[in-house]
Amino acid sequence: MGKLKVYADRMSQPSRAVLIFCRISGIDFEEIKVDISKGQHLSPDFTEVNPLQKVPAIVHGSLKLFESHAILVYLASAFTGIADHWYPTELSRRAKINSVMDWHHSNLRNGAVNYVINTTLAPALGRQLNPKAATEAENVLLSSLKTLEDIWLNGDGGFLCNGIQPSLADLSMVCELMQLEVLDERDRSRILSPYKKVLQWIENTRTATNPHFEEVHNILYRAKKKFEQQRARTAETRTGPSNKPG
Amino acid sequence: MGKLKVYADRMSQPSRAVLIFCRISGIDFEEIKVDISKGQHLSPDFTEVNPLQKVPAIVHGSLKLFESHAILVYLASAFTGIADHWYPTELSRRAKINSVMDWHHSNLRNGAVNYVINTTLAPALGRQLNPKAATEAENVLLSSLKTLEDIWLNGDGGFLCNGIQPSLADLSMVCELMQLEVLDERDRSRILSPYKKVLQWIENTRTATNPHFEEVHNILYRAKKKFEQQRARTAETRTGPSNKPG
Repeated sequence: MGKLKVYADRMSQPSRAVLIFCRISGIDFEEIKVDISKGQHLSPDFTEVNPLQKVPAIVHGSLKLFESHAILVYLASAFTGIADHWYPTELSRRAKINSVMDWHHSNLRNGAVNYVINTTLAPALGRQLNPKAATEAENVLLSSLKTLEDIWLNGDGGFLCNGIQPSLADLSMVCELMQLEVLDERDRSRILSPYKKVLQWIENTRTATNPHFEEVHNILYRAKKKFEQQRARTAETRTGPSNKPG
Repeated sequence: MGKLKVYADRMSQPSRAVLIFCRISGIDFEEIKVDISKGQHLSPDFTEVNPLQKVPAIVHGSLKLFESHAILVYLASAFTGIADHWYPTELSRRAKINSVMDWHHSNLRNGAVNYVINTTLAPALGRQLNPKAATEAENVLLSSLKTLEDIWLNGDGGFLCNGIQPSLADLSMVCELMQLEVLDERDRSRILSPYKKVLQWIENTRTATNPHFEEVHNILYRAKKKFEQQRARTAETRTGPSNKPG
């Protein structure tokens, strides 16, 4: 079987989760960049890999696979030497991890991705910002954060379902929340700061997966700076030039 | 370990999928009705089972589990004698089934459930019908049906991912589409009739899982009749009494 190919755009949350998992698990793989902002996900070559034209996707031998949770579960099962905490073999524990990963789609993912797109990222994707959709998404996001804080992070384990080490679910969902980095910093803080366990969990997952976590997120930190500069320029245009020397 | 308890409302699509799977797999279980229209999902007893107050949920020994896909996967793994086609042990095949089940949440589920609620079921759930949300949901539903027809049902197998027998994904997604039964029949036909493979696949899944499929769906057929009568009465009120003798 040929080397695993991972088609990813590091600006995509689930792409980052798959890349970090491959790196921390010592999986030998080739990263193939699919730049969504350049429309590379629409190319005929990539459509051959994933007819739904979304990242991440993998090719492993004759298997072409997409949907990041299915990819993560496949990798944790198909490669040897993967630490058991990522996708526990014990059935009850595995069931809980599957439960939180299934919950994610219509809740945290739905809220976070639509809030970030409709407040910030839409123009870079050739779409319009949509304040009404952003408000609806914010409601879903805040409700999901409350569920994370009160239910999924209940206990002293520091990870989801009272885990003491990260699972595939922790990695997927923390990468999702990291996307909030591109928001205005006051807005990001307003949304996240009431959820103390969530904030600690993000740090726990970052620590448990470094240096890979920070390396794979570097592109997001650069995007964060770019959006900060754009917002500063927009504010200056609105209020006129400041008195400070340029 | 005590007998499996399945908390379900047969008016809920994922509840039906879990019940049909238990019955066809010969799992010894107790069905506990949670009537959503009577608010029974909000009771303290059920909140102990599922703090998110949604059906289906199961209790099996010390495990409390919700999210229907996680439940189905757990049951297929924890009980003996389950036919392999439901959740294949071969990793590539299993990965494909996981992929389509992950895709389901933000696509077919999102479109179908919100269309049915916002055109038909909302009043029974104490909510208002919302035509604008219905239009948005219809777009997601139609796009999901096209993906089912062109991609997931590609091939001659008759089931998802070119399967020749049903998987957990087939059961989950066909139960979702069955919810369209409560729509006005012309509307249901308008939505589904362009998708010939989808229609055949619904029949294939029904046949493969009968008599359990029809028995568990009976409540839905009764609801369909009730909604038909309501629509007829509303139409009569609008047009005035007919000339025909009562």
